[in-house]
Amino acid sequence: MPENIKNISNSDTDRPIGVFDSGIGGLTVLKALQHHFPHESFIYIGDTARLPYGTKSPATVARYAESLTTEILRHEVKAVVVACNTASTHGLHAVKNLASPLPVIGMIDPAAKAAIAASRSKHIGVMATSGTIKSNAYQTALLQHNQNCKLSSVACQILVALAEEGWADDDIARATLHKYLDPIFHQADAPDTLILGCTHFPVFIPLIQEMLGHSVTLINSGEAASHDLLDVLETNTKSTQGKTAFFVTDDPHRFADNAAKFYDDRISADDVTLIDIR
Amino acid sequence: MPENIKNISNSDTDRPIGVFDSGIGGLTVLKALQHHFPHESFIYIGDTARLPYGTKSPATVARYAESLTTEILRHEVKAVVVACNTASTHGLHAVKNLASPLPVIGMIDPAAKAAIAASRSKHIGVMATSGTIKSNAYQTALLQHNQNCKLSSVACQILVALAEEGWADDDIARATLHKYLDPIFHQADAPDTLILGCTHFPVFIPLIQEMLGHSVTLINSGEAASHDLLDVLETNTKSTQGKTAFFVTDDPHRFADNAAKFYDDRISADDVTLIDIR
Repeated sequence: MPENIKNISNSDTDRPIGVFDSGIGGLTVLKALQHHFPHESFIYIGDTARLPYGTKSPATVARYAESLTTEILRHEVKAVVVACNTASTHGLHAVKNLASPLPVIGMIDPAAKAAIAASRSKHIGVMATSGTIKSNAYQTALLQHNQNCKLSSVACQILVALAEEGWADDDIARATLHKYLDPIFHQADAPDTLILGCTHFPVFIPLIQEMLGHSVTLINSGEAASHDLLDVLETNTKSTQGKTAFFVTDDPHRFADNAAKFYDDRISADDVTLIDIR
Repeated sequence: MPENIKNISNSDTDRPIGVFDSGIGGLTVLKALQHHFPHESFIYIGDTARLPYGTKSPATVARYAESLTTEILRHEVKAVVVACNTASTHGLHAVKNLASPLPVIGMIDPAAKAAIAASRSKHIGVMATSGTIKSNAYQTALLQHNQNCKLSSVACQILVALAEEGWADDDIARATLHKYLDPIFHQADAPDTLILGCTHFPVFIPLIQEMLGHSVTLINSGEAASHDLLDVLETNTKSTQGKTAFFVTDDPHRFADNAAKFYDDRISADDVTLIDIR
């Protein structure tokens, strides 16, 4: 058992894993976590009344992340996954302070480590929201793991709206992806690895992979975070399937309707609880 | 002097006009107001920490509109303009209650009246955010003014993101506008008038007018609201130019940087005050 969780008793393993996001994109992370932790239960909170975080200031995003952490800790979770790149960028420190000694996994560091491991050339691309790009969060994390790596990054704000509209595989999505990615990948020494630095972006994986070809490795934050969580968490050994409870700060029906774009299973609005967080 | 403002004294005419929006799109309304009221001063509040409103529930939007009204009344304004279609749809009643007896102008009714006046066929198109479209606010307002008018409406969520990204006149904007508007305008009996039912959309006027031709009249909410305000407000008779003070709930620098997409004059971040509204 790893040193950092030796004080968690057996009964603690039954606790759910807490996952929060600015809204709905974090469902791609939840999907990856459920795949890797099939016997775990999850609490998912989407801050749909205040989304999106990607265009907001560091101080505002940190304040939102703190309020969501306070809420998620009420559910006696055994770990917290910050399933939003922007909240991970600006709020992870605050979340860790509040949730200590529970393990806290953000989106940035796991994806940076996975990209370093996957890349042969150590030239890595990052596509993310403008907030994440402006923060240089990926650059900082990548250089921490490998001082020789090179980063090409692009803020792809429109993709969030396209993903939420369900326009993930049409000509407009294709033209938008070209406009954002061509300047990076049409250079002589192009990246061989691309971090999808926003939880909305996995819906574009088929189109991006078709555009870039299979010589470019795509890094999905949810997958990378799952691998990091496997390293630090004592998992539930019961063979029963875990349960997931959904909480949102705005209309549960809208959340349930839109969830299908990011999540394979159908979510009924009856299974989504409206909560008030300010 | 109209009956409803006879109790406003001369000194009251020096008071500013309050304008609020979910963020930055309301600057197109402010621009129209400043054109029609060159001697008036304005207070503009953009709720940039909680934008956008277009995808949020009626109850949440009404709560946000109330908090902004409370804030704007602190500035002793002589009228309130709700420069956001979604806030007008869900929050106008609450704003009027709070601001009474001051005149309150929303975006829906002025645009509906202007469209009825402009349309020969009385078949009117509306493009707006999904929140405004789902509410049937324009349908209700149009039928109130003319029971025989016909409405074709479309939710154009992506356009908000395109406008904020500054992609208002490229091939992606054109393809997106075609995808939204072609089903309405490629019918035998197409509308002859189109309401731009979101304050972000005036940035697309050149492209829309080019696509639809000049036989379709475009209704700009800011222009329509200015005409309604002229009817109810005793204006400042001083010949000096009015001043405008800007307040936002998130990063003033980001607001100032993005303002240029929606507003002709340059706004310096030093002229924008950060306020906390919850």
